[in-house]
Amino acid sequence: MKNFYNNYIQRIFNHWIDEYQGNVRLGLKGRILLEEKTKFQKITIFKSNHYGNALLLDNCWMTAELQEKQYHECLVHPALCSAEKLDNVLIIGGGDGGTARECLKYDELEKIDLIEIDRRVIELSKQYLYKIGGESWNDKRLNIQIKDGISWVKNTTNNYYDAIIIDSSDPKGPAKGLFNKEFYENCYRILKPSGVFSAQTESPETFEKIHLDTIKMIRNIFKYADPLYGSVPLYPSGWWSWTFASIEKPRYKYPNLSRANKISKTCEIWSPKWQKGSFEALPANLERKLQK
Amino acid sequence: MKNFYNNYIQRIFNHWIDEYQGNVRLGLKGRILLEEKTKFQKITIFKSNHYGNALLLDNCWMTAELQEKQYHECLVHPALCSAEKLDNVLIIGGGDGGTARECLKYDELEKIDLIEIDRRVIELSKQYLYKIGGESWNDKRLNIQIKDGISWVKNTTNNYYDAIIIDSSDPKGPAKGLFNKEFYENCYRILKPSGVFSAQTESPETFEKIHLDTIKMIRNIFKYADPLYGSVPLYPSGWWSWTFASIEKPRYKYPNLSRANKISKTCEIWSPKWQKGSFEALPANLERKLQK
Repeated sequence: MKNFYNNYIQRIFNHWIDEYQGNVRLGLKGRILLEEKTKFQKITIFKSNHYGNALLLDNCWMTAELQEKQYHECLVHPALCSAEKLDNVLIIGGGDGGTARECLKYDELEKIDLIEIDRRVIELSKQYLYKIGGESWNDKRLNIQIKDGISWVKNTTNNYYDAIIIDSSDPKGPAKGLFNKEFYENCYRILKPSGVFSAQTESPETFEKIHLDTIKMIRNIFKYADPLYGSVPLYPSGWWSWTFASIEKPRYKYPNLSRANKISKTCEIWSPKWQKGSFEALPANLERKLQK
Repeated sequence: MKNFYNNYIQRIFNHWIDEYQGNVRLGLKGRILLEEKTKFQKITIFKSNHYGNALLLDNCWMTAELQEKQYHECLVHPALCSAEKLDNVLIIGGGDGGTARECLKYDELEKIDLIEIDRRVIELSKQYLYKIGGESWNDKRLNIQIKDGISWVKNTTNNYYDAIIIDSSDPKGPAKGLFNKEFYENCYRILKPSGVFSAQTESPETFEKIHLDTIKMIRNIFKYADPLYGSVPLYPSGWWSWTFASIEKPRYKYPNLSRANKISKTCEIWSPKWQKGSFEALPANLERKLQK
């Protein structure tokens, strides 16, 4: 009876949902539209008053209709603007559709393989967060596979992708295996020598150790790897990072300007100038820790 | 009786305190050490489990022992590293001592006038947040005046300060008059032509209009003014801004490297490289809105 009552309250009346990270919490007010457990995780769809419909996985904020561009633009464009070609792009995760949407802005892009482990994330994103993926869901260049990203990279032939984008949740549950050496080694193997790799690499404050270890691991494998820092108000501490890697040279530092100019008007945060400045703007203590 | 009980709970047991900004909240767990109303505002000292002792003014997070460098370094060093001289520095607000501490790292600095309106902010910061101000409180170069900053700038003679730093709370209550034309015009008048002005200019997300209007107002008065963006996890949205202004040229873009090198090892975020990159890394939509 108590559960029934709680459920009723949560679906009818406004209330707060918080993501807890130890002794810090970030809450949004609104109401729950749907909650379900899949084989992989708990999915919550929340209608927030501030950011529109939002997605939580295992009680952590993942994305929201009105607070997602800061994350998706920063993950995608530094990679896609600087890879030599855009014939084949791989997205691991990204079931909300935002990463695919940013990739599909490039006319010259031929094909995206989007590998999402949980079918329900895609189905519910299409239904409740349609503003994020939008027409991208119908783009014929988008090949969605409901599969495990770890196996996918293991089973792909060498030098296949022009860009690889890891759009994962935090390193626990289904995303745990996306933060380890074997996985990155496979990404390196299947990336073309002129390609660019990109991954979300967590908060340098809330998850400092994972953040630093991950960058160092990627750098060891790819030779060139550097983080970018930015703000994602929905995520723990609001201070977020993405790491870019390449093989022949630090290609991600040199966006192709004619390609960039075609899409920069559509962006809220990213621009080639923002990208250049952000790679310079390395916080002093992180710069020191990454040199160790 | 209920109040007594609540008070007891809040001082003895861990509980959450949140800053509310409409339908978003940021909470820390811990317990209240002290709460009092002054003539100007409500002051709360909170022992947070995550960030150490923290200060709230009128229920908004102001600073915390372990989460303040990101704010103070970014407010101070781009100004103090690029002003021609450092004979006289003015801080308006800054009662927690963090801004003064960063300023006093410069040996060549001769004198700081710190103008704080609320005596109790300083007294309680010395008592509960001593880690922030530390030995700066005893530095003979620091001249503390418990006065209204608006009158102070009005009554100062022309071309007096080498750097002016506005370390205010949000534009309401006692800080309201620090976000208007007359105040900035007086700052312009009392700044030396070779000096640099600096102000915290709010979150570009939570307070977008105030943020943009303030930068434009400062730019109109000083001729040269540009914002820097960074992360302050304790503040609304975690995405924060500081605006720097100067008269003869955009002096704040060119830190004096020999001066910078003397202090950069003591900093967690700021470095001359970070400063240069951050002025470039202007988010695309804010760049467009600031050009209008």
